[in-house]
Amino acid sequence: MPITSFHPPVRILLGPGPSDVNPRILEALSRPTIGHLDPSFITMMDEMKILLQYAFQTRNDLTFAVSAPGSAGMETCFVNLLEPGDKVIVCQNGVFGGRMKENAERCGAIPIMVQDSWGDPVDPNKLEEALKSHPDTKVVAFVHAETSTGAQSDAKTLVELAHRYGCLTIVDTVTSLGGSPVKIDEWGVDAVYSGSQKCLSCTPGLSPVSFNERAVARIQARKTKAQSWFLDLGLVKSYWGGAGKRAYHHTAPINALYGLHEALVILQEEGIEESWARHQRNHQALRAGIEAMGLAFAVKKESRLPQLNAIIIPEGINDAVVRTQLLQKYGLEIGAGLGEMAGKIWRIGIMGYGSNLRNVLIFLSALETVLKELGANIELGVATRVAAEAA
Amino acid sequence: MPITSFHPPVRILLGPGPSDVNPRILEALSRPTIGHLDPSFITMMDEMKILLQYAFQTRNDLTFAVSAPGSAGMETCFVNLLEPGDKVIVCQNGVFGGRMKENAERCGAIPIMVQDSWGDPVDPNKLEEALKSHPDTKVVAFVHAETSTGAQSDAKTLVELAHRYGCLTIVDTVTSLGGSPVKIDEWGVDAVYSGSQKCLSCTPGLSPVSFNERAVARIQARKTKAQSWFLDLGLVKSYWGGAGKRAYHHTAPINALYGLHEALVILQEEGIEESWARHQRNHQALRAGIEAMGLAFAVKKESRLPQLNAIIIPEGINDAVVRTQLLQKYGLEIGAGLGEMAGKIWRIGIMGYGSNLRNVLIFLSALETVLKELGANIELGVATRVAAEAA
Repeated sequence: MPITSFHPPVRILLGPGPSDVNPRILEALSRPTIGHLDPSFITMMDEMKILLQYAFQTRNDLTFAVSAPGSAGMETCFVNLLEPGDKVIVCQNGVFGGRMKENAERCGAIPIMVQDSWGDPVDPNKLEEALKSHPDTKVVAFVHAETSTGAQSDAKTLVELAHRYGCLTIVDTVTSLGGSPVKIDEWGVDAVYSGSQKCLSCTPGLSPVSFNERAVARIQARKTKAQSWFLDLGLVKSYWGGAGKRAYHHTAPINALYGLHEALVILQEEGIEESWARHQRNHQALRAGIEAMGLAFAVKKESRLPQLNAIIIPEGINDAVVRTQLLQKYGLEIGAGLGEMAGKIWRIGIMGYGSNLRNVLIFLSALETVLKELGANIELGVATRVAAEAA
Repeated sequence: MPITSFHPPVRILLGPGPSDVNPRILEALSRPTIGHLDPSFITMMDEMKILLQYAFQTRNDLTFAVSAPGSAGMETCFVNLLEPGDKVIVCQNGVFGGRMKENAERCGAIPIMVQDSWGDPVDPNKLEEALKSHPDTKVVAFVHAETSTGAQSDAKTLVELAHRYGCLTIVDTVTSLGGSPVKIDEWGVDAVYSGSQKCLSCTPGLSPVSFNERAVARIQARKTKAQSWFLDLGLVKSYWGGAGKRAYHHTAPINALYGLHEALVILQEEGIEESWARHQRNHQALRAGIEAMGLAFAVKKESRLPQLNAIIIPEGINDAVVRTQLLQKYGLEIGAGLGEMAGKIWRIGIMGYGSNLRNVLIFLSALETVLKELGANIELGVATRVAAEAA
């Protein structure tokens, strides 16, 4: 039988990303494709830079979207800032710190690992010890918002420490950008990457990045070429950064960029502070409902990301059965645990367009029903009532 | 003033890509986003593999779309097949052979360049000389369809030669796939990459690739890790290739993949041989009209790509003025020359969905009008009449 057009089911995406995409963004994706050197496309790219600067709260000139997913954004930072033999301190408190180590090694750099428990934030004291023990470190890298655990680290303090010891910083804001405060200039972050498919509520496939002048100077002073041609900022920069004139590097993903532009226009319309506040409000409602159900969070209150909630799977409850029932009966996708958290937590993303009270109530209602059917001691209706009151 | 939604102008894209996108594909892009581990998304990925195998005319199991543009597809081939110190023969007859050299160098490999004039196909005799002079060569790389010149090389002969000397092959089919014969299994190509935005008429941003068993064995026998984490096939393979179970690697560009799936369904509906024949027919019509206007092709008849036509800019005619008038007055985008061809040729893509007689006639009519206004000795209406007769 021949293969026919694919028509996806309609889900509500409450996992760690992709999050639900605003229909305005889906419509933007379907606008007519134009050439990547068309004057009006170049105007759009100029606007995109301004919109991304707003999202990152930065005035960095080198602010753009890598033409590939967040993993490629991470790699862009590593291959451009590190040279073979460079020491880099990687603070790991989840899956994505481990990926940073992989990236550093493949650059021929020497990763010094600072480990914290999964679910905890990065401990600044451990970072400082490592900086003292390795005074020749060039770069400190850490994840601001660990997508695998929902823990948020104190980026400002970690960046200050790194600078005190003469290091540049690479910061992962894949899950935080747009959903909780990310202040690149105020914090002094040197290189940052994010993803389109979390709190910006765009489709996956693009990675917003930004580099300050210290990072650009480091790149310009490289003795070796970046090992990736596709991600070499020396080349990409003249495509994205040039005033008026753009040198051909690769063919930009035109329609995907329409989508990101629309997502950023929506963020600007709402106002970024209001977006942060909305994520916080809906988190409070979710939290009230979750706790009313007798469930617990995997991350301490003070380090919880409002947009990504790691909930401990109650004893005796089968992880996969719950997720499958939520998907099949209610069309709700939630996230499984990753790595050492597999089978131990669920990850509930209340992100971007999907961060609204309706989704919180639908999710709580579905979850309490599924858990009750599986024998948990639940009184139906309590979680949603408590959540609605807390909202 | 705040930035508002971007509404692109409607163009007819007759440059070297992106080509005009079928409205069915634009609509597919706007379908609801689902999770990249959703069971129905995994079904779609399985279908995508079958559809790509058809497009590449291969049974290779490792056939998928890299989550980034064609340049990243090229890099995927190089970073996985080459290790530091490996010799690779790169046949260059345009811009993209030069990019292959850059890729090889950044892998720590040693590129041996075989140069042909831009606009000529790769000369098998020169390749054989290089193979004899460098018997320790591991890989031969060349561009099947040079996007910078519109010249097509004899891939079958070049691959046979490479194999005779014990080399694997990397072949660029960015501009050929779907528009003129690409027969991966019949030709014995070991590693191939392409782009979504040429004769598949999809939006830019994805790179179909395929690797045969020899290539996979080479990758499995590597002594060093591929230098790119994002493009490491050892990791990507377990995401795309796994039977039933897919290990998380990166978040796939969901909606972009909807688009590619639809593009490949359309190719399957038409039949790939009919698509090749259609590109040839519309090329013949264009050629008749172009020659009736007194213009000449930059590439010899026997090496011309039907889908990408390099036309010599007549003496006394200002390149940029013509392109700007075509764009502004007629909404037609054509391509400028790249690299050493800049200012010397126009590149006319009659590709994919855009390969139809309507576009040939619109283009000829617009071009003759613009050239006449600029003082060329043109009798209006002749080119379109001759083209229509040749169709």
